[in-house]
Amino acid sequence: MRIVETPLRVRYAETDKMGVVYHAHYVVWFEVGRTEYCRAAGLPYRTMEEAGLLILVTGLECRYRQPARYDDALAVRASMSELSSRGCAFDYEIVRGGNEVLCDGSTRHVFADADGRPRRAPDDVHEILRSFRLSTAGG
Amino acid sequence: MRIVETPLRVRYAETDKMGVVYHAHYVVWFEVGRTEYCRAAGLPYRTMEEAGLLILVTGLECRYRQPARYDDALAVRASMSELSSRGCAFDYEIVRGGNEVLCDGSTRHVFADADGRPRRAPDDVHEILRSFRLSTAGG
Amino acid sequence: MRIVETPLRVRYAETDKMGVVYHAHYVVWFEVGRTEYCRAAGLPYRTMEEAGLLILVTGLECRYRQPARYDDALAVRASMSELSSRGCAFDYEIVRGGNEVLCDGSTRHVFADADGRPRRAPDDVHEILRSFRLSTAGG
Amino acid sequence: MRIVETPLRVRYAETDKMGVVYHAHYVVWFEVGRTEYCRAAGLPYRTMEEAGLLILVTGLECRYRQPARYDDALAVRASMSELSSRGCAFDYEIVRGGNEVLCDGSTRHVFADADGRPRRAPDDVHEILRSFRLSTAGG
Repeated sequence: MRIVETPLRVRYAETDKMGVVYHAHYVVWFEVGRTEYCRAAGLPYRTMEEAGLLILVTGLECRYRQPARYDDALAVRASMSELSSRGCAFDYEIVRGGNEVLCDGSTRHVFADADGRPRRAPDDVHEILRSFRLSTAGG
Repeated sequence: MRIVETPLRVRYAETDKMGVVYHAHYVVWFEVGRTEYCRAAGLPYRTMEEAGLLILVTGLECRYRQPARYDDALAVRASMSELSSRGCAFDYEIVRGGNEVLCDGSTRHVFADADGRPRRAPDDVHEILRSFRLSTAGG
Repeated sequence: MRIVETPLRVRYAETDKMGVVYHAHYVVWFEVGRTEYCRAAGLPYRTMEEAGLLILVTGLECRYRQPARYDDALAVRASMSELSSRGCAFDYEIVRGGNEVLCDGSTRHVFADADGRPRRAPDDVHEILRSFRLSTAGG
Repeated sequence: MRIVETPLRVRYAETDKMGVVYHAHYVVWFEVGRTEYCRAAGLPYRTMEEAGLLILVTGLECRYRQPARYDDALAVRASMSELSSRGCAFDYEIVRGGNEVLCDGSTRHVFADADGRPRRAPDDVHEILRSFRLSTAGG
């Protein structure tokens, strides 16, 4: 399964009074990982959206293992765990130092048109995603 | 099971370019619901924290059903679905107009000390929460 | 000058690792104050936007005096300091306990159409705002 | 005057229903620029904070010229416009494509101890900052 890794630096704005990253920000980082996954697949999400194909979030899960801290150099690892003509799902890991998993999670999505109505992904988009998610990074 | 309902007005800052609320903000609203739940139970979370009892988030789930929009008058309904001496769990609904559920979800928590180490809740805190979660609003 | 006051409760999400509210969130509270100012004037901003009149932010100033903290009960006081057919400006105070000013600031705005191009406010909108900003709360 | 430039990619989370970046997020980007400025000067802000030297924000100004959009590749350019033993000030520009200035602004700061009380910067810290701000990138 293809994994796309995106580096992140923790912002002061993302911490809370407990001195660690506020838990909702990991959800934003998942989105950053998703954006870079689509770009790596050759389908920048901005371009998809301009072409009338939206990827709506319908579900979300996170498990928090260790807190991230201000200025930590992290990475989000994103992979597409499911794909159909109607939607997809992503898995994520937030890692520090290459192998310490701070948080993992997943999101579920449906494809939609510009008005937010469910639609099928065009065949060519589906084929690009299908092929990319099964590829290897060196491929 | 006691449900605490807190009104919310959607802020412009909470919307995204799709014209609806960005999905991570529901997670913040869950936290608002949790804060008001603790206050209603007679244990304001700020007071608990000052007394050295933190409630860390270890897990999160959301299901998105209908989008919330700028300036919508919403409410978050929070209830405590589980409670032990070591932690607790909450269920949430984000509702519009009294009965349209836009999003529901849950969070899992462990009790911790000021340094983030797991600890047991003091007996009196546990008893207050135990009693409150099983009470009725009129009680 | 008419002042519209809106209550706010500080969210955990709005704090940072210094233990106080992160400075960018005051800017969001200014927007909350602006929204309620327009509603009080009889021109909900959502309605204005749907009618094709946007109020874009072109400038911002804040002075931070005392930090706000988690769970503080605050209020944002908003007044319209300038108004022309092309734009307006607002002044704000974030207050705690009725008279402790934590932060004050201002924003400058131009009126725009749905595509973000400068436009004049319609005469009736201008007249409502003009009349409201000079009114007294009891009026 | 030394300018430190930090690349940024606009996140979906940072947009609002107008389809552009919500104005408060530029303030967060200023902070990102400040963090990288301190790191470039050899004084990572995290290290300064751990050593008991905080840089509090006392004032903020922004002028918005052109909107940033989702997925734009931007940069924040930060320079230290003032420095004394008691505080400092920064100037910022948010630029796209190397020379289109979308937003510029400034922040004012006082040095403080871990409890938020004003303090003087230690001589060595002051000297490092003084020297760095007047240096040239090639120097």
